[in-house]
Amino acid sequence: MPTIVVDVMPKSELLDPQGKAVSGALGRLGVETFSNVRIGKRFELTVEGDITDEVLASARKVAEDVLSNAVIEDVVGIEVVE
Amino acid sequence: MPTIVVDVMPKSELLDPQGKAVSGALGRLGVETFSNVRIGKRFELTVEGDITDEVLASARKVAEDVLSNAVIEDVVGIEVVE
Repeated sequence: MPTIVVDVMPKSELLDPQGKAVSGALGRLGVETFSNVRIGKRFELTVEGDITDEVLASARKVAEDVLSNAVIEDVVGIEVVE
Repeated sequence: MPTIVVDVMPKSELLDPQGKAVSGALGRLGVETFSNVRIGKRFELTVEGDITDEVLASARKVAEDVLSNAVIEDVVGIEVVE
């Protein structure tokens, strides 16, 4: 079944407290490899049938209107898998 | 700055109540394009310097041990961007 993956991340100019917490935890665990961690969401939308232009347009609209909050988040990717 | 993206999704055999809620909301909004929605997490790990095999190994270990809960989640992707 084709799936559309939508990636949503907190806007880069905003603090990401969840990411900061993970970043701090990594430091306390002795992992110094990563200087920053940001955490967003990954949505998998299952499509019955073929991926048409209308389906992609619907995914883009849903990503902007429902899956993300434009005040604090950006839709950083919409891609078809399988 | 190179970034490693780690994608974590709830295991497919588990219910995903958050995804079910979004799926129901889409139905109520009149969007019938998507038969199922699942919601996972997307981590962006910033790396200072080059992506070496050690950095990738560290990312894999952190993804399994810290960023995901192996009881209920799968690491579905680790990729380098930029």
